[in-house]
Amino acid sequence: MPKVEICLSPALLHLYDLENKNVVFIDVFRATSTIAAALHNGAKQIIPVDSVSECISIGAQMSGSITAGERDGKVADGLQHGNSPTEYPSEFIEGKTLVLTTTNGTRLLYMISGAKNILSGSFLNFSATAQFLIKEQVDVILACASWKDRFNLEDTLFAGAVAEELLKNGYEHNCDSVRVATQLWKIAQPNLFDYIKDSSHFLRLSKFGLQADMEYCCQIDKHNALVLYEDRKLITK
Amino acid sequence: MPKVEICLSPALLHLYDLENKNVVFIDVFRATSTIAAALHNGAKQIIPVDSVSECISIGAQMSGSITAGERDGKVADGLQHGNSPTEYPSEFIEGKTLVLTTTNGTRLLYMISGAKNILSGSFLNFSATAQFLIKEQVDVILACASWKDRFNLEDTLFAGAVAEELLKNGYEHNCDSVRVATQLWKIAQPNLFDYIKDSSHFLRLSKFGLQADMEYCCQIDKHNALVLYEDRKLITK
Repeated sequence: MPKVEICLSPALLHLYDLENKNVVFIDVFRATSTIAAALHNGAKQIIPVDSVSECISIGAQMSGSITAGERDGKVADGLQHGNSPTEYPSEFIEGKTLVLTTTNGTRLLYMISGAKNILSGSFLNFSATAQFLIKEQVDVILACASWKDRFNLEDTLFAGAVAEELLKNGYEHNCDSVRVATQLWKIAQPNLFDYIKDSSHFLRLSKFGLQADMEYCCQIDKHNALVLYEDRKLITK
Repeated sequence: MPKVEICLSPALLHLYDLENKNVVFIDVFRATSTIAAALHNGAKQIIPVDSVSECISIGAQMSGSITAGERDGKVADGLQHGNSPTEYPSEFIEGKTLVLTTTNGTRLLYMISGAKNILSGSFLNFSATAQFLIKEQVDVILACASWKDRFNLEDTLFAGAVAEELLKNGYEHNCDSVRVATQLWKIAQPNLFDYIKDSSHFLRLSKFGLQADMEYCCQIDKHNALVLYEDRKLITK
């Protein structure tokens, strides 16, 4: 029976064997939510990069590209757009390449190696993510981007939601992170946004006026695209 | 208002500023439980060491000492006793020095530096630990030894229990680990042992027949001694 495990922080990723497993990269506020929205709305691909300078440099070389990224809740100097899932409607993003830099997400993505598939997961593309994994029946690591390596609530809740689906559909576990995350998900599920309002990242981003963005990120399957990371690009299939 | 934070794994300890804070070292199964029991039963002091060879070497140099430690649930070769809180009744341990090596606990203890006080906490000495911190009103880090750096349930629950007491008595927090641990503690509290029976460490140690030991470790205030780590020795005051 395939196993599911949850890694609560990039600083714990070295404890997990990723070889030939399906790894889900999770950064609910807001990288993986924005990625799901942009690809579902027709973006050709997303290139995740870890610095603003690399974002500018790749954007300059590639026609039809848009550079995007925030620092402290504002569009970073030199970039064109922010890291909000609401900024990329289809009339704007269709057919384009998004070059995206994020605070926590990209660094984790770069750390994942040897996996069979790397998926990008968020509540916005929950079912597409879970269904792909259920069909595969291959060991899964749900990897939370967290906040500067500190445990965070929203990524853990999403990991719990996916783990619960997998445990109902042929997966098993022996991992305290899975126990706790699925239990938290059961508590949070009836009103996810209300529950998440008390998290440290919510309080941090609220200072930048991003409450509506975070409420958007709590919608299940709003942009239900399967997102895979292949050849250093995020695409949907 | 002083703050309380929870560090879920030694691999995350570098994210926390320990300087002049009160740090509680937590290894419920079973190092900090055994430490509380032995000191409460009259041990003069406990010297924690990280290897079996160091344990043997210190024990050989010190009269009135007992060497103790387990590997895979059995007394390690060359040592005299195990890592069970039930092995150290007062008629045996009173006035003696215990030289103790553990799998997860000692390594974490060695990592803590710059703290105002270092305490050793377990359910067995819950109130003594919490009351000391409440009297101090100094920032607190609750540091879980975990299992080989992986998140574990029992240390997190104890941290949640202490955090809840502190939050009721003059402390504040903005830490998702505290949110989650206090919530889990509320769920587990009515029947701690039943709840913990489902944890990965419980299942692991059960293979060595240690269920009764773990049930013993779930008793609140059974050995309610305040335990401090000073000059590389654990003592009670």
